[in-house]
Amino acid sequence: MSENLPALPRQDRRISRTRRQLREALMALILEKGYDAVTVEDIAARADVGRTTFYLHYRDKEHLFLESITQIADELAEQMYALFPQGQAVQEDQVGDHAMRPIVLVFRHAAENADLYRAMMRGEGGLIAITRLRELSASYALEFMRLFLKEAQTSLPLEVIASYFAASLLGTLTWWLEAGMPYPPDEMAHMFRRLAMRGVWEALGVTPPSSSAGQEEIQRLR
Amino acid sequence: MSENLPALPRQDRRISRTRRQLREALMALILEKGYDAVTVEDIAARADVGRTTFYLHYRDKEHLFLESITQIADELAEQMYALFPQGQAVQEDQVGDHAMRPIVLVFRHAAENADLYRAMMRGEGGLIAITRLRELSASYALEFMRLFLKEAQTSLPLEVIASYFAASLLGTLTWWLEAGMPYPPDEMAHMFRRLAMRGVWEALGVTPPSSSAGQEEIQRLR
Repeated sequence: MSENLPALPRQDRRISRTRRQLREALMALILEKGYDAVTVEDIAARADVGRTTFYLHYRDKEHLFLESITQIADELAEQMYALFPQGQAVQEDQVGDHAMRPIVLVFRHAAENADLYRAMMRGEGGLIAITRLRELSASYALEFMRLFLKEAQTSLPLEVIASYFAASLLGTLTWWLEAGMPYPPDEMAHMFRRLAMRGVWEALGVTPPSSSAGQEEIQRLR
Repeated sequence: MSENLPALPRQDRRISRTRRQLREALMALILEKGYDAVTVEDIAARADVGRTTFYLHYRDKEHLFLESITQIADELAEQMYALFPQGQAVQEDQVGDHAMRPIVLVFRHAAENADLYRAMMRGEGGLIAITRLRELSASYALEFMRLFLKEAQTSLPLEVIASYFAASLLGTLTWWLEAGMPYPPDEMAHMFRRLAMRGVWEALGVTPPSSSAGQEEIQRLR
């Protein structure tokens, strides 16, 4: 039975569907009563599968939660890669704009899913979510920076820059959501960029960064 | 009985002592077994008081935890104010140094109390601690910025700058602690400043800020 082998890279359609149903069930339940109150029984019942099926795919609630967060982040990252027009040369004066777009995307995504984000960030689940999102953001930031940097021209370790960037973004986003989104997402993204990115560009030693090299890399990644 | 009136501004020596004992008991227990596993009974026993006495001072464990965090932050803030030499004129070229010192203090404090910080940031207590520390840092940042700014010369709302700064600092600090402090505290503070403060100074429209006005304000606050 293929469902016994969830760790294999080849996942058939049925496994994907079951996992998607479990993720959607968890997210719906988090919205309804918060992560802490949700049980595996609740999730299985909502997804219309048995508890045994749940445990074929996930160790526990936290395992499913972490995978759900990774899934959301991956989808967002895919949208970011799609932002960079394939085969289209980027003018040097547009580099700032390119660095801007992924940030706008993050704030828009949070605004569109504000209820879910807020529900995810409460209680015991909150620290799990924030820690995971920070790790994912740092690893994406590292990947993005490496796209733009051919040489070791940075004056600070890349892991420090990426960790600072991820922590700033997640923390500012959390504050903004908890404060009831007092500024529209695009304006908030713009303010965040002005505050956070100046030091990053300076540390990277790229003003503006070489973007054509990044374009090639991005195309290779697609 | 004065212990029945913990909310009154006038606190006698005995109340202060009992509360300090309860805070110290909680911190020792967090280090030993983590916030989540600590009970009010544990705390009262460790502080050598009865459960009834605990509830005369605090609603619950979380209430005591929040007050303990505030106490730590206040002590740190006092050290920051003490950094600014009273009556001593600050040269314009030393302003960057002045902005630097409180950041160094934060990273040193975290390094000296790394076990406690890490224990505080785990489990259910983690989100409580991080949220509270972010709020406190933002409010101190706001206060510090107002010391240095006589006029409305900033190009971004002060609350956004303060919230960004607090979120960046707390998030970077958390990453650094969780990564096992891969850089010494002073070096980490220096890297954080290079990454985070450039955008802040630009947004504040002060390069360098007027520091003599700030000195007067600080003296008034002392």
